[in-house]
Amino acid sequence: MSKRFSFLALAVLTLITSSQAQEKRGRIRDFGIQIGILPTGTNNAITDVAGVTVGQKTLIQGDKIRTGVTAILPHSGNIFQEKVPAAIYVGNGFGKLMGISQIEELGNIETPILLTNTLNAPKVADGLIDYMLSLPGNEQVRSVNSVVGETNDGGLNDIRGRHVSSKDVLEAIQAAKSGPVLEGNVGAGTGTECLGYKGGIGTASRKLPASRGGYTVGVLVQTNFGGVLQINGAPVGRELGNYYMQEPKEAHKVDGSCMIIIATDAPLSARNLERLAKRSYIAFGNVGSFSSNGSGDYSIAFSTNTKNRIPHQTDKPVFDQEDLGNDFMSPLFMAVWEATEEAILNSMFMATDMTGINGRTVKALPIQQTLNILKKYHALDYDKLPKAVQK
Amino acid sequence: MSKRFSFLALAVLTLITSSQAQEKRGRIRDFGIQIGILPTGTNNAITDVAGVTVGQKTLIQGDKIRTGVTAILPHSGNIFQEKVPAAIYVGNGFGKLMGISQIEELGNIETPILLTNTLNAPKVADGLIDYMLSLPGNEQVRSVNSVVGETNDGGLNDIRGRHVSSKDVLEAIQAAKSGPVLEGNVGAGTGTECLGYKGGIGTASRKLPASRGGYTVGVLVQTNFGGVLQINGAPVGRELGNYYMQEPKEAHKVDGSCMIIIATDAPLSARNLERLAKRSYIAFGNVGSFSSNGSGDYSIAFSTNTKNRIPHQTDKPVFDQEDLGNDFMSPLFMAVWEATEEAILNSMFMATDMTGINGRTVKALPIQQTLNILKKYHALDYDKLPKAVQK
Amino acid sequence: MSKRFSFLALAVLTLITSSQAQEKRGRIRDFGIQIGILPTGTNNAITDVAGVTVGQKTLIQGDKIRTGVTAILPHSGNIFQEKVPAAIYVGNGFGKLMGISQIEELGNIETPILLTNTLNAPKVADGLIDYMLSLPGNEQVRSVNSVVGETNDGGLNDIRGRHVSSKDVLEAIQAAKSGPVLEGNVGAGTGTECLGYKGGIGTASRKLPASRGGYTVGVLVQTNFGGVLQINGAPVGRELGNYYMQEPKEAHKVDGSCMIIIATDAPLSARNLERLAKRSYIAFGNVGSFSSNGSGDYSIAFSTNTKNRIPHQTDKPVFDQEDLGNDFMSPLFMAVWEATEEAILNSMFMATDMTGINGRTVKALPIQQTLNILKKYHALDYDKLPKAVQK
Amino acid sequence: MSKRFSFLALAVLTLITSSQAQEKRGRIRDFGIQIGILPTGTNNAITDVAGVTVGQKTLIQGDKIRTGVTAILPHSGNIFQEKVPAAIYVGNGFGKLMGISQIEELGNIETPILLTNTLNAPKVADGLIDYMLSLPGNEQVRSVNSVVGETNDGGLNDIRGRHVSSKDVLEAIQAAKSGPVLEGNVGAGTGTECLGYKGGIGTASRKLPASRGGYTVGVLVQTNFGGVLQINGAPVGRELGNYYMQEPKEAHKVDGSCMIIIATDAPLSARNLERLAKRSYIAFGNVGSFSSNGSGDYSIAFSTNTKNRIPHQTDKPVFDQEDLGNDFMSPLFMAVWEATEEAILNSMFMATDMTGINGRTVKALPIQQTLNILKKYHALDYDKLPKAVQK
Repeated sequence: MSKRFSFLALAVLTLITSSQAQEKRGRIRDFGIQIGILPTGTNNAITDVAGVTVGQKTLIQGDKIRTGVTAILPHSGNIFQEKVPAAIYVGNGFGKLMGISQIEELGNIETPILLTNTLNAPKVADGLIDYMLSLPGNEQVRSVNSVVGETNDGGLNDIRGRHVSSKDVLEAIQAAKSGPVLEGNVGAGTGTECLGYKGGIGTASRKLPASRGGYTVGVLVQTNFGGVLQINGAPVGRELGNYYMQEPKEAHKVDGSCMIIIATDAPLSARNLERLAKRSYIAFGNVGSFSSNGSGDYSIAFSTNTKNRIPHQTDKPVFDQEDLGNDFMSPLFMAVWEATEEAILNSMFMATDMTGINGRTVKALPIQQTLNILKKYHALDYDKLPKAVQK
Repeated sequence: MSKRFSFLALAVLTLITSSQAQEKRGRIRDFGIQIGILPTGTNNAITDVAGVTVGQKTLIQGDKIRTGVTAILPHSGNIFQEKVPAAIYVGNGFGKLMGISQIEELGNIETPILLTNTLNAPKVADGLIDYMLSLPGNEQVRSVNSVVGETNDGGLNDIRGRHVSSKDVLEAIQAAKSGPVLEGNVGAGTGTECLGYKGGIGTASRKLPASRGGYTVGVLVQTNFGGVLQINGAPVGRELGNYYMQEPKEAHKVDGSCMIIIATDAPLSARNLERLAKRSYIAFGNVGSFSSNGSGDYSIAFSTNTKNRIPHQTDKPVFDQEDLGNDFMSPLFMAVWEATEEAILNSMFMATDMTGINGRTVKALPIQQTLNILKKYHALDYDKLPKAVQK
Repeated sequence: MSKRFSFLALAVLTLITSSQAQEKRGRIRDFGIQIGILPTGTNNAITDVAGVTVGQKTLIQGDKIRTGVTAILPHSGNIFQEKVPAAIYVGNGFGKLMGISQIEELGNIETPILLTNTLNAPKVADGLIDYMLSLPGNEQVRSVNSVVGETNDGGLNDIRGRHVSSKDVLEAIQAAKSGPVLEGNVGAGTGTECLGYKGGIGTASRKLPASRGGYTVGVLVQTNFGGVLQINGAPVGRELGNYYMQEPKEAHKVDGSCMIIIATDAPLSARNLERLAKRSYIAFGNVGSFSSNGSGDYSIAFSTNTKNRIPHQTDKPVFDQEDLGNDFMSPLFMAVWEATEEAILNSMFMATDMTGINGRTVKALPIQQTLNILKKYHALDYDKLPKAVQK
Repeated sequence: MSKRFSFLALAVLTLITSSQAQEKRGRIRDFGIQIGILPTGTNNAITDVAGVTVGQKTLIQGDKIRTGVTAILPHSGNIFQEKVPAAIYVGNGFGKLMGISQIEELGNIETPILLTNTLNAPKVADGLIDYMLSLPGNEQVRSVNSVVGETNDGGLNDIRGRHVSSKDVLEAIQAAKSGPVLEGNVGAGTGTECLGYKGGIGTASRKLPASRGGYTVGVLVQTNFGGVLQINGAPVGRELGNYYMQEPKEAHKVDGSCMIIIATDAPLSARNLERLAKRSYIAFGNVGSFSSNGSGDYSIAFSTNTKNRIPHQTDKPVFDQEDLGNDFMSPLFMAVWEATEEAILNSMFMATDMTGINGRTVKALPIQQTLNILKKYHALDYDKLPKAVQK
């Protein structure tokens, strides 16, 4: 319990734009909202997958820099020298994610996964190369497949300025740690918007019962998209009068994007990781989105299973690998679907009002109003419903 | 109104397995359930897209034949001689849909789209070839790309018997007509199961406001999959105690499949039709499914826009085509997302109890109980919520 | 040596259409043509991959039936119960190959691979289901992913008649055996045409040196496509005055298709099998083809590695698999590239003149003329050139 | 004629590394080598497609900087405001090409296409963003899909230094012009290697006869891959004793990559552009390569047809587009296949010896020796062979 409060305390530090008292923010479960039937991991975060760490650098400077970088590290070693099985699902390819084809071809990831803003992606990738080349053991490396995702924070941030530097990249990576993850207006989520309100970084996890393998699935999202907000099935966007295609005029632009990072300790091949990644796309429906034309929606999944690590150099042609059978994938599919929905909602609940470039302000989701709506729709009573088998 | 009642009357004729009075069935809107913010087309059916017709042949014979065939015709002419732009999205490829690669390569469909049961797909494809070769004008045809989808009705049907014949195919195609579409236990949905209850054929449509192009999107589904049933956001599956991974034991198997057929009169290229098809996959989330490992989930989309018909033979190398710009796709994406959710629910509401092979019975969704649950969750009050601009 | 001659003797039996003496046919190496730098396997056939068998049924009846079926069995057991890792590469999707999406999704094949003519594919698939359902151990099977490829033999065969029956399918499968494979006008190649001449079935293999893993790659093709014939680099099509876009009029239609089946004993994941399959596409360039619009060009690759067999049913969620590292794939890529080129040429060298429907005759490649051309271009002197390391 | 000589004169200026007289270099047709049956365009270059321009910046500094950037501009206007239909084919995805998913999703390109070295790709992309944001009319642009391809020149170049700057990008773009294109050791080809010799930039084109539409297809390549060199069918690599898997030890590493840029004035949809791009992959076979594991092989195709330009902003939802029918694609497929083969060979014939980092020297293909080999194999006599219809 104390852990959660200290975490909230940290989050409060990010409240820098409000001229008056904002609502107390928290993760959705702090307010009694429960998504799905599976139990969460310890911190309900992508870092619940053992070895995964997250680091962020938030850039809030002057009246127009509202951006940053978020780094997800699959393990604490030299990722280039010990690659992890990975896959990508492209939900809607209107985005600039770098590194796609090599991940698909070779079935692995060899760098941390970085998130930032659209026009900053190349600069961040160059910073990532700086970092990779500088690692002990990488002195001879002459090829690096940088994995850098982005969403467009240009509504609040001076995106044309490309303010995220190589130094920021390094600081984000070096800040990576396990345990709770900062959410809301942090890192690559500093200036993003979601479903008519302030978006940001969010995370969640699920732990399968032992009878289903006991695996953990963790998700981290950078939310920046539109639609017709639903929370636990309740039509919050319509009740609040803030949704796509609303009359007499649209309350918010639907275009925008979502990056979804998925970690699991299940021993999955690149093929089954791609199938896992794809299920996160279905979660858009549950929050009221349909992946609009302008939304660059990508899911990246990797496995931390240590037996399946891929050494960069080896004289051993044949690897012994562990591979979870197709028939045992469905519980993992359910886990990623639930965790993605919850991570998106956490990003909105943890985000706070933000004023940025051109004096524009994007309000955070009004939590008290939202809770009242959820109450009306009994969307806060899910603890009384039956759940999945827990063991 | 009378149309709907006569349609219901027809549906009632399919009630053949109940030894006692079953609940009165109907489409979800008959019971006040409203999905989404966009208005429906005239019949809230795939046939609302002008020119599209649907024909079905239902096989209920003895105590173990519970299957059939459903035919969707993009237009009333010779489809081989006048092909329509089309695309396929493979949500989960654990299925036997025939015709995929040619549709993807050439961007068109040249036959009616047929749905049937898994093991019957080849026989139905052969029957489709019979039909195509027999059409006036096709005397020289020596290649036909049969499009035949399927789901597995082996829980109620003697699927190994492959009882759908070439004659049944012909009868289904010849029965094709515009207007309301039979739903529930008919055609290819005769023996299917969905989310723990009897599934079947369902349909729905959306009509965009004129300011968004005024296009119609129609969807027809063959439902045969599992998950944790949600209706308009309400946790119906958990309230009814019938869902995947339920404790102490699973209430229903999650494996199964869904075929989704999408028609539109919008002038879409094959590329944008594929993007449209993909959005139907997101609707799984809204009914509480996540596309399990065993679920063969496919979406086929075609455009009926007459200017974009593709003649089989022509001396004219260059076609003038109409193409809707990418930036105008989002309302169509929303339309297919909403219509798919509604079509799935219609398939369940219209289906009735079915007893089949080995004396096994699959119960229909208990409508009254479901409505009580929806009432509790205010999921019947959506007419009071704001909607999309209608003009 | 005697083996080869008896094999030739069998081939001679297929000479049924010549009213006068035809040239003696043989495989290209019988005439001194050597493709590439890698050594062949024992029989220079797909059956050099241990466990792989091939069976064929040739239908030559009356004056218009010129077709058949070719079956490739990955192993001699119940393939449904012990599936093999597999992948598909679609070079040009203008074809009717059945089974694609499930192979791609699940990464395996669960039936023999059958080849036949275009309009017969569904009937052959239905025959394959008959066979699969009838196997001991498959009594409960209610879903079968039939893999049936085709090319269009309608230039010589009464293709609209769909003369290949379920019985023919069974006979082809039952005839499957290891050792030399019948080539030319047999099985699914009975009525096909290639590069302006009679095509058919062809096969070849390569064995990597032990230093590269010692793996075998075998290829079987059904050739039915056009272009500008090259043999070992020599411009045979142009010298013979028979090629696509020739003036004053085309000597042959370029449309047509090619099915390519690839077997290997290397322990490859579905991902690397797909990469292997893709390399066969490059071999088109070496025989003078470019995969025309009308050519349905597909490559199916599977691994016979026994450790990687996938049981249909198991209680063991996690498999131990062997996986060849990406960095060790290149020699296999070269092997499939070479073997595909050679298999295509073997199909033409072994084919003989064929007269079929409407009295149309397709001549076999004139071997003596071709050898004279090759001599001019020194394409018969490749035994004097250096080769790959053999150990 | 004079044009060609002045062009050669320019090329000679790039001979900076030879301490002694090198052979006179030239394009393959200067030496009588003729690839294929179709006629070339005016300059036998990608710039034969009207409106396409190419600019390059070559960096040869000190003893270890051997790299550069090559820019291909689809038209001379603001490409962001007037996008062109485009597609990508990924032959082997072991590379870092940026921009893939957006091109595939939206079917267009909105920037010049830049080529550079592997580790420099992000920096070059950032330079491209500088350029795009600075263009008049782009003041509000906040999203740019940079298209930057690369191959690895680390064998000659200090690749870890990332020496190509934003300024170099700008200079390359500003240098873009129509007419002959510099080939060999220039721009992004300055430090690349191909088939055991010095590679570089190459180009070629084909013009279809009027009866086939009269369209032009132009190709530009950055060659950096290995294999067993063939020229017009002659086994040059084996005759020269320089090929992959040669005994007793490999003469050259097979890994490396190839970027292939394809322009055409044919009115092609993104779908047919992807099919066109794919055919360039087949040309690898013709030069003796098989797309090794380490080779990042990508083809990007775009159409310059002015009717099909895509305005960045428009109030007009529906475009009238011209679309070449599928049945008329085969001649274009042949054209891109032939032109790719020729462009690769031009890159080698125009390249000269290069000494770079660590004092390593890569020799150019010895032209006189090569011509002697071609003479032996009659590969110089192709002008005596029949060609395609020219009108």
